[in-house]
Order: sequence, then C-alpha cells, then structure tokens
Amino acid sequence: MNNKFSKRIREFKPSGTHQLLQMSERPEVISFAGGFPAPELFPVEELKAVCEAVLNEQGPASLQYSTTEGYIPLRQAICGRMKDIGIESNYENVMITSGSQQAIDLTGKLFIDEGDVIICESPTYLAAINAFKVYNPRFVEVDMDEDGMIMEELEKKLQAHPDVKFIYTIPDFQNPTGRTMKLERRQRMVQLANQYDVVILEDNPYGAIRFAGEPLPPLKHFDTEGRVIYLSTFSKIFSPGLRLGWICADEAFMARYVSLKESADLHTDSFAQRVAAKYIEMYDLESHIEKIRAIYKERYSAMASCIKEYLPPSVSYSTPQGGLFIWLELPESIDSAELLQDCLRNHVAFVSGASFFPNGGGHNTLRLNFSNMSNENIAEGIRRLADVLRSKL
Amino acid sequence: MNNKFSKRIREFKPSGTHQLLQMSERPEVISFAGGFPAPELFPVEELKAVCEAVLNEQGPASLQYSTTEGYIPLRQAICGRMKDIGIESNYENVMITSGSQQAIDLTGKLFIDEGDVIICESPTYLAAINAFKVYNPRFVEVDMDEDGMIMEELEKKLQAHPDVKFIYTIPDFQNPTGRTMKLERRQRMVQLANQYDVVILEDNPYGAIRFAGEPLPPLKHFDTEGRVIYLSTFSKIFSPGLRLGWICADEAFMARYVSLKESADLHTDSFAQRVAAKYIEMYDLESHIEKIRAIYKERYSAMASCIKEYLPPSVSYSTPQGGLFIWLELPESIDSAELLQDCLRNHVAFVSGASFFPNGGGHNTLRLNFSNMSNENIAEGIRRLADVLRSKL
Repeated sequence: MNNKFSKRIREFKPSGTHQLLQMSERPEVISFAGGFPAPELFPVEELKAVCEAVLNEQGPASLQYSTTEGYIPLRQAICGRMKDIGIESNYENVMITSGSQQAIDLTGKLFIDEGDVIICESPTYLAAINAFKVYNPRFVEVDMDEDGMIMEELEKKLQAHPDVKFIYTIPDFQNPTGRTMKLERRQRMVQLANQYDVVILEDNPYGAIRFAGEPLPPLKHFDTEGRVIYLSTFSKIFSPGLRLGWICADEAFMARYVSLKESADLHTDSFAQRVAAKYIEMYDLESHIEKIRAIYKERYSAMASCIKEYLPPSVSYSTPQGGLFIWLELPESIDSAELLQDCLRNHVAFVSGASFFPNGGGHNTLRLNFSNMSNENIAEGIRRLADVLRSKL
Repeated sequence: MNNKFSKRIREFKPSGTHQLLQMSERPEVISFAGGFPAPELFPVEELKAVCEAVLNEQGPASLQYSTTEGYIPLRQAICGRMKDIGIESNYENVMITSGSQQAIDLTGKLFIDEGDVIICESPTYLAAINAFKVYNPRFVEVDMDEDGMIMEELEKKLQAHPDVKFIYTIPDFQNPTGRTMKLERRQRMVQLANQYDVVILEDNPYGAIRFAGEPLPPLKHFDTEGRVIYLSTFSKIFSPGLRLGWICADEAFMARYVSLKESADLHTDSFAQRVAAKYIEMYDLESHIEKIRAIYKERYSAMASCIKEYLPPSVSYSTPQGGLFIWLELPESIDSAELLQDCLRNHVAFVSGASFFPNGGGHNTLRLNFSNMSNENIAEGIRRLADVLRSKL
C-alpha cells in the first residue's frame, strides 16, 4: 500500500523521539525528557466549580459546534493579557487553535511550498521541525549565543536566500536551549524582516514563566508592518491537556488561517474554550502563574546546582531565566544518543540534542527538563547522569 | 504579502458558505442551513456529574499532555461500539481525532500529492471537499441514485484512472443527500477496491442515527485486505463541541496517521476524551442515542410532510431513513444560489447544492437540515421556502 501514500509521508522518517519518550515513561526512570508542566499545580479543585458554572450557565452552547475563530470572551481575555506585555490587538486578530502546535502546523500549511526556505534558530523546537517537514521546506539555521539568534548571521542568511518565507523564532527561554533573545536583537530582527520583506513567526509558549531577570517585550511589540505572527498557549500557564493555543496576526493573514483551521478540524473544543474563559473570570490566573514561577524557579535552582556539583567541568550548560529547559554541551567525544542508551539502563532519561538540529549536527548536546519533578528526583537523576557520563570520559 | 503564501492557499477560494451561514444565524431567520445536532438533547446535567468524577478521580492526568493515539479506555469503548455494527478491531487500530473533520484532513495529508485522483460521490460533503482541496487533488465524481453510488459508474472511473488514491464515501444517510448505499453495493465497492488496488475512506458520522428501516453493515465489515479506513465521531450522538472523532484503520496506516496527528496538534483534548469515556461508563449512551433517533424521526416526518404539502410537485426530494438532511432537486430553471438570496430576505435559509459538487454543477439542488428545529419552525420555514419558490416558477 506504500505506493499510495503522498510524497510528504513516504519521505517522512519518524524521529524516534516517540519511542524514546515511551521508554523514558517507565516508573523506574527519572525522566528529564518531556516538557510537561508540573501536574500538582493544575487547578483541579477550581475547575470543578468552573465546569459546573459553564454547564449551568452555557450548557448547550458549550457542547455545540461553534465558530472556527473561537469563543469571543476567551479571545478578548487573550487580548488583555497580550496588552500587558506590549501587544496591541483586537479579538478579531486572534484565533484559538488546538494548542500552539496546531498554530505551527497551520503556519507551515499557509506559507511553505516544497523547497521553500525557512529560517530558524540552531537548534530549534523539535515538534516545529516535524510540523514544517510535512510541507518539505529547506531549513536554514542561524547560530545562537547566550543572547539568542546572532543578527549578523541572520542578515548573511537573508542575503544568501532572497526567497525566505519566514523566520521561526522562540525569543523567550527557547526550546531547547532555554536562552532568551536580548532586547536590541529583537528590534534588529524586526528591522531585518522589514528590510528583506519576510514574515516572522514568533512562538512564545514560555514567556510568562520568567523566574529571574526583567521581562522583555515580544517581537510583535516592535512590529509596524504587520509581519510578525505571534503564537502562544495556555499549556504552560493553565493546562496542556485542554489543547488551547492561539495565533495573533494581522487581518491579511487571519482570513486564510481561519480557512485552513476550518478545513483542519472546524474549531477548537467549545467546552474547553469556555472553561478557560470562565476560569479567568472566576479566579486570578496571574496569581496562579505566580505559583508556577515560584516552583519552577526552585526546581531550576536545584537542577543548576546539581549540574554544577555533579557533572564534570568539561560540560557547559545554559542558564535560563525562565521556561522549562536547560541545554547541555558535552565534550566533542560524547554522542548524546549513545549516552542516552546507557542512561536508560541507569534509569535516567533526557532528549539527545541532535533532534533539535533540522540539518543534522549537535551530537554532543542534550536537553534537560526541570518542571515536572521533585527536587529529590532532580538531584538523584543528575547524579545518575553524572555517573554514566564519567564512565564515558 | 500575498507572494509569501503557499500555492495551496493562493489558489484557495473560500466557498462563501461561511458568510452565508453567518447570515442564516440571524435570530429572525429559520435556518435549514447548518448540520447542528439538537442542543436540547445534550446531556448537560449528566455532564456535571461526569466532569466532577473525572476531576475527582483523574484530575491532574485529565489536564496533562497525553498520547497522540488517545485515551485507551475511550478507544476500547469505541471498539466495543464498532463490534456491535460488525467491525472487529483492537484499540491499537483506533486513533482519537479532533472531530472526524481532522480525520478527513489527515487522510488528505497522508495520501494526496498535487494532481492525484480521488473518487467521491456526486454530490459529497462540502467540508471534505475543502479539506482535500488544500492538497490539490483532481476530484472524479461518481453518480448516485437513491441507493447510493452507482457501482457500474464507479468501475468505469476506476478503469479510466488507474492511479486513484482513494474512494471517499459516506454510505449511511449521506451528506448532503441523505441517501444510503444498499447492501450489495457495499460488498461490490470493497470488491472493486481490492480488484483495482485502491483505498476506501468510509466516513460514517450518521450511521447510529437510523430512525427507519434496517441497519446495514459498514463497508469496513466486508474488508478482508485492510484497505477500508473507517471514520466516525461523537458529534452526532453525544456532543460536537467536544471535538471527538476517530479513525479505525489497519496498522499499515496507523503509524503514519499518528505521526501526522502528532505534528498537527500533538493530541486531542485529554479532558474531553476522559469525559466521553466516563460518560459511557456512568450512563447508557445507547439509550441517549435512542432519544435522539426518536426526536429526529419526528422532525424528519414533519419536514417530509410539509415538503409534500407546500412545495410544488416539480420539486423532487430524497427520503432518508436517518441522519440530518433532506436533498431537494428543483426544476432546471431555478438556480438555488439565487433562490437563497430571496429566501434570506424572506427569513429562511438552506445550503445551495452547488457547493457539494467539487467540479461544479447542481445549480438546481439544495440541502435542508431538520435536526436543529421545532416542528413549528420546520412548518413555517418550509412555507416560506414554498412562497419564494412559487414566485420564481
């Protein structure tokens, strides 16, 4: 039956991450592999009251088909939150998606023809690479340092590829590196996008989870020509299971996004949208996020000090001010995919870094997640990782 | 910015249905245009208890990321329901989708390269046409009669197009015609698919809503070579707002569907999946569906007798044994898109038939929905339609 499949899926190789994630989910394994929020912080009790209120007040409407764009009070609440970080918008610039993963997929569908060039950070978010790959682009990677994508490198790539469709960037606490793009680079990136006539896809799932330093305005804040498309999500600040993300973009884009979303799944879960809106109405989302920040700060500190204490000094690591991830660079002689096999036997897991480089490379890198685990398990897991690593050096 | 868009969206013309549906939603309009289930039948009270039970028993897990394939108890419940209609399956053959619309979109992504031939009934489901169009296929339509797709015509098309990717069919109470494929044609279609080595995409959202006649086994029941992909949904038997559909297919397909679903939106709402599974555990879904059948039967009868009484005898109409729709064929001289403009002024709406023909045609046809309205409104709406129609004859 293989001859029946479309070219995009005949050429598609599963990343293997799926299988590794399953192995890392065994109870005896301490897993730094996922990107799961801390489940003990989910507002379970509050949601009992919220679900009851939604069913009492809006029962049939919350279970019926609804518009592709999404539930207006939720879109208005999103506009309010975006205003607080410097994005002026109207609810008509916002479409609710089934997680921001869907926003990434729809963006690939909207822009990419086979062979088109898209620019991204090197490394970048694994599931965005996989979503874009379905549309067969060429990935052009731009080097980063601790302050995010390097603008001189970006300009060279824009000059070399005059037909770039968009720049995909995660400016805050990037996945996988945890790095944050500094202020002047944000302004410079928008300038470059204007100058070279490209779109910026700003993916910002972690921005609200800042536990150190000062907040920086999103790229969208500096957008004067409507060429920044901003994506975010309730996954890290409320619940990932409900699959609620959004796209904020200029009207030139919105009508097309709505058409693509309509043909993809008609609309996002009506009930989940009304539950999120009602939660925001009944409770204080900001103070809920404050709790998440406090816990993640503690877990980050625990992991950072264990890394310092247990890992050999030849390992370098990022020092994020928020988000969910730390990025390690091991000595050149270590292949982190092989290391992972040994680690799994020692009951500790991570994601090896190569999967985050769309064109290959990064064999000696890896990503650690700290959001989903007790301080004790963090310490024990880093000790196990250190043991395996020392045996390879 | 238009030069940045992908070819698929540059060529994409919105159907206009979106706008018409918005007009038809004005409160003064009696709308036969949608395909909405009767909201007064949604189990709102039961869902209060269900949501509370899910949050009490599975709180954090119901709000966390989950597997792309879906929640196993829900997939097992689906296998049980499919067994009752003659489909043997294991939960590993079932993936939960964000409504069956997503299953249709993922199928387009899985099979269609630009220019590929897909076969469908003439007319066929509007939103499937739009989902497939994103992947730029050529549609080959096969004529129907009151017993569904005509097999002699299908075989001619299969002979003429040896490179067909799949046959898309809605065998039970088809959208838009309400027609049902008779038994021997079901067997024959599977034989033809085997003979000509094509895949069948069996879309069955309405099968459970049979209010007259005897149930017929799905095409999947006759599938001996794993080439029938079966799609269904909870939208018509439980709640469309929760966006819960599924794909049942052979393992040769499942791994690829899972990869595509993962890159499209990671997974379907965890909470909605657990709510549906818990509802099935706590209540009797079958007796709930029995209530839906009884009401739809009554509404269908009301609409059918009003059509007979008020519409001119030159109008012919389908006589469905289930589902949500009646299909009208008007005299050749009437263009139903023009008729609709006049009807909207007279505060009655429908979907004009041309949108259901992917290659054009059907100007004198239209679709009426009877599930979402009181018998009084059905009578008044058909009277309004009849008035406008008589003025055009």
